[in-house]
Parts: sequence; structure tokens; C-alpha cells
Amino acid sequence: MPHVKMSELSPDDLSEIYTFAVQLGKDAGQMLMQAARLRTDDTRASQQQEEHVQKANAVDLVTETDENIEAFIKNQISSKFPTHKFVGEESYSKGSSRQYLIDDAPTWCVDPLDGTVNYIHLFPMFCVSIAFIHKSKPVIGVINAPFLNQFFSSCAGRGAFLNETQPLPLIRNPVPPMPAKAPSGCVFSCEWGKDRKDVPDGNLHRKVESFMNMAAEIGGRGGKGGMVHGVRSLGSATLDLAYVAMGSFDIWWEGGCWEWDVAAGIAILHEAGGLITTANPPENCETSPIDEVKLGSRLYLAIRPAGPSANETGRESQERTVREVWKRVRHLDYSRPGA
Amino acid sequence: MPHVKMSELSPDDLSEIYTFAVQLGKDAGQMLMQAARLRTDDTRASQQQEEHVQKANAVDLVTETDENIEAFIKNQISSKFPTHKFVGEESYSKGSSRQYLIDDAPTWCVDPLDGTVNYIHLFPMFCVSIAFIHKSKPVIGVINAPFLNQFFSSCAGRGAFLNETQPLPLIRNPVPPMPAKAPSGCVFSCEWGKDRKDVPDGNLHRKVESFMNMAAEIGGRGGKGGMVHGVRSLGSATLDLAYVAMGSFDIWWEGGCWEWDVAAGIAILHEAGGLITTANPPENCETSPIDEVKLGSRLYLAIRPAGPSANETGRESQERTVREVWKRVRHLDYSRPGA
Repeated sequence: MPHVKMSELSPDDLSEIYTFAVQLGKDAGQMLMQAARLRTDDTRASQQQEEHVQKANAVDLVTETDENIEAFIKNQISSKFPTHKFVGEESYSKGSSRQYLIDDAPTWCVDPLDGTVNYIHLFPMFCVSIAFIHKSKPVIGVINAPFLNQFFSSCAGRGAFLNETQPLPLIRNPVPPMPAKAPSGCVFSCEWGKDRKDVPDGNLHRKVESFMNMAAEIGGRGGKGGMVHGVRSLGSATLDLAYVAMGSFDIWWEGGCWEWDVAAGIAILHEAGGLITTANPPENCETSPIDEVKLGSRLYLAIRPAGPSANETGRESQERTVREVWKRVRHLDYSRPGA
Repeated sequence: MPHVKMSELSPDDLSEIYTFAVQLGKDAGQMLMQAARLRTDDTRASQQQEEHVQKANAVDLVTETDENIEAFIKNQISSKFPTHKFVGEESYSKGSSRQYLIDDAPTWCVDPLDGTVNYIHLFPMFCVSIAFIHKSKPVIGVINAPFLNQFFSSCAGRGAFLNETQPLPLIRNPVPPMPAKAPSGCVFSCEWGKDRKDVPDGNLHRKVESFMNMAAEIGGRGGKGGMVHGVRSLGSATLDLAYVAMGSFDIWWEGGCWEWDVAAGIAILHEAGGLITTANPPENCETSPIDEVKLGSRLYLAIRPAGPSANETGRESQERTVREVWKRVRHLDYSRPGA
């Protein structure tokens, strides 16, 4: 297996990698949950937790749990597939650059703990996220949210699943089209993130202006009011994508997160039938092509799986929704070396 | 039991009511989950779901599931405790007025389905909420979120629990004090709600201005920047309160919801050691007394359970946090007859 040419990944190769990834996600999720339980059970663990809370204002809070789980995942992968590349959130945090490193080589892209703030506070929306990337495309995704008992997995061409048995999206007989007046009728998921500089026309202001446009009544905001059905913020980009794949969130729009936050979610969303493109509106929202998202772009707009209606294919209703979102959101400013 | 004078509720009476409420919450949660599963399993159920989504823009979307479960709960209560009053979300929706009806009589206050929008979209943050109110105080609370496998319960003087075994708050050896620089370091939960009128200085604008103040960097927003650790919006007031009781959310601030949305959560939060008062800042945020919330006020500010530090009691750190929130939020305008 280590010596196979990854450009010629056979169905058996893919099966072996998928089986391995699923088990890895289960083991890592168990480590995460064990570490969480420790903090609720004994005094020593609670002191540790208090220290974590003290660090709460840090821009990029990194816990020991993060590092331990990433080391475990990295070791497991390098034992099983020594030729594969590894890109992990913790490795990046320690490095000086956040250059985009994923190329055509077979690569694992891992966030050992997505939703770190949630995890610190024991809000259940945290997870481990593992993606296998082949020729620059996420083809296998595993997301384990152990406090929620929710395990998401997918393999290119083989479907996406909740808890290995329920196919995604959950509502599928038939899969509903996007609402006729989307974003009205849609659950809109978005994140406030860590970039909270109070700069006029900075990212925070642009984000909140966009949230307001999506939320306000039809006719409001100079015609931009989208009257979405609900606005949700979970604090986990990975789980946002998992819930878009489930069909629970219709739209997720976000800037600022990284490839390890989204790689597994993108794999699962694709396999479920969702669409993902850039968060930033093009010059012409009506006619611009809707390109596949760039994994390292830090700018994401995801639309749930959608079935056909009398007038449209599912893809057409998704693209219509993308354009309606683009008309209502601001351009965000996130860049990086190498992307 | 039906003939007992409720003003003299004995420990045995309370036990009987608590045992009944817990079983009722389990049965109602099972009904909710069965109805949800139907929508993922067969074509006929999916058509039903599509109709629900069509109604998505309605101000107060009410499903048949809501009504069926409320009828079940109401029947169970009136069979067991025929003298008790019943206040349910569905009964109110059908009536012409939203007058506040809770007085000193023993009363059940029920939301058969909190998080209706989430339920429609099968986002797991929905629940049944059952409170028993004695002398105008919620003394028993039961919240069942079946898709999350999370069951919250409490009885005055007997503790609050997750899944009947884990005492709340989850982190308790010791319970951490509120952060020294709260709201910095806090997870802040808030809701966009249904009131989306784009009126200058209307509730939507006041809410979002408040969210911005809580989120922005320290020193931003003319000194109001709170740099909270995270901003969360779940779309369920009931679960917001449950997560405050768990200790997962440090602060929940909201206007516009109703007593059936919060009664069970308030019972559980109290029993876990949390504080709940009004969302609207008084004239003097520094010195005004911090009164117990009025159940029907539609204005809520909840602070998680907190333990002592070297300098403060837990209550002192909670009150300090209340004042810091009040300094950053706007007055909201929600009223009703009889409150």
C-alpha cells in the first residue's frame, strides 16, 4: 500500500484508506471525549481546565489535548502510510508561516480539535476532523463529534453518512429543492470568528453587515433584506459543513478559517450533493461562473444538497441561492502566502 | 394528590410531581423523535416536510407535531393532576391574546417543541420543555433534546442533571468563578429571533449593536468592546438556558421569547446555581439592584453557575458580569398585556 502510485488509486486502495480513516476518527474522538470527561470528574483535571480558561483571550488558543491527539493521528498515519503527506492544525500553529502546502501528493489534512473554544467551555459542538486528499481534492472525510454522538463519514463515490448508517442528506425522498425565494426560508449559518478588530469597513463590520442583510425583512436594507428562516452560529466550521451536508443548514457563509477546518467537511458535503464555492461575491453576481472552492482560499460559501423542482434542477436551485447570497454579502479580506 | 393544597407542597408531593414530569419529558421526546424520523424515512412524510418548509416565512410557524405533543402532554397532566393549570405554547398561539396567565396556582408551563425552525430543518437543536410552577416560581424543569441524546432535569433543592446522572454544572471541582475580565473570556449566547423589521433603532438594530459591543476587541466600540471568547446562536431559548446551566455558555442575553420558552430552563439554571435577571439595563448599571427575573417579562439575561475566587463569592462574580453586560447592551422593546 505505501508504494502504490496515488495517481492510480484503485477501489481497493480507497477502501483501505477509508476503513483506516473511519477507525482513526473513532479512536481520536474517544481520546477527545476522555479528556473532556477528566475535566468534569476530578479536582486535578479541573485545575487544568481553569488554566485553559485563563488563556481564553489568546488569538489562537491551543490546548495540550489538541497536540496529543494530533500527534496520535500523525503517528498512526505515518505508520500505515509512510509516504503520505500530513497537514495538521497544530503543526501550522507552531510554524512561522501559514503558507498553503497542499499539492498533488496524497495528503492527510487534519484538525485534531475543531471548536476549541466550545471544547474549553464543554459546549458539545466540538469535533475531530480528518480528510484524505487525492490530487488536491478531498476524497475522504471523517468528522467525529463525540459529545453529540455524531459521526460523519464519506468516501468519493460511496455516499456520505451520519453514524455510518443514515445517508446524507437526512431528508431524501425526495431531497427538497432550495426554497423558491431563497435566502428566505433558509437556515443561514455564519461565524463571528476571532478577527474582532473594530476598524471601519474591517472584516468584523463587513461580516455583521452581511449577517444583517441576510436576516432583515424582505424590502429592508435597501432591498437586500433576505429574511432567512434563522441565523445560527456554532463556533465550529467543521460542524457547520457537516450540518450543511445533513441538510440542516441551507447556507453557510464564512471567511477566515483554514483548510484543516474545512477539508473533511468539503469531502462529506460533496458526497452528499452539496455545493461549495467562494464567499466573496464576483463583480457580476448574476452571470459570473460558480467555480469550485479553492481549499486554501479561507473564503467559503456552502449550499446544502438540493433536489429538482418542476422548474429547476437541484444544481440550478443551488446556483440561484449562491447568487442571491452574493448579492447580500460583503467582500472579506483574508489572504495568506502561497494561496 | 389532586386534592392536596399546593401551598403546602410536601417533599412527597414534589417527588411525585417530579417523577411524573421526568417520565412525561421522556415520552414527549420520543414522540418528537419518532415524528422527525418519519420525515427521513418515507416519501409521504417527506411531502409533509416540504409543506412545512413552504410555510417557512410565517412569523410563528406551528406544526402538527407541536399540536399533537402539546395535546398529549396536556391530557397526561389533566388525568394525573386535574386541578393544575396548564399554559402551553400552542394554546397561546391559537388564542387572540398573549396575556400573562401564570399566578399562584400550581401550573404547568410547556413548550412541546422549542426550536421549531431547527426541527423543520432537522438541525438537532430542538427539544420539549416542561416546567412545574409553584407559587409563581418554576420549581421543576425537564428539557429533552432527543436528537442530541440530552435530557436535562431539576427539582428545587435536589439538584440539576444531564441525563439524570451528571450533576450540573459539568465542571464543579471546583466550579470556576466568572472570568476576571468578563465578558472577555466568556462564551456569549444570543438569538436573532423573528423580529426582523429594518426600523432605525428597532429591536433588530439594537440587538445587533449589542452583539457587536460584546464581540468587538477591548478598546473598540468607544470602550464598549467586550471581546467575548465566542458568540453563539442556536435558535432555541430553552437549550440556551440548559447550556448556561451546564456551564457551557457563560452569558445568555435575549429579548422576545415567552415564558414557555424559558420556564423549564430557569428552573434548571436556578438549581444548578446560575443567575437570571432582566436583559434591559437599568438607569445605573453599577448600583441598581439585580432583581430576580420576571418569568413573563420576555427579557432575559442569564449567567452560568460560578464558584468563589480569592476576591469574590460566586454570586459577586455573577453580579459583576451582569453589570458588565448591561453596560454593553441596548434596551429592547418587548411588551405584552398583563405582564
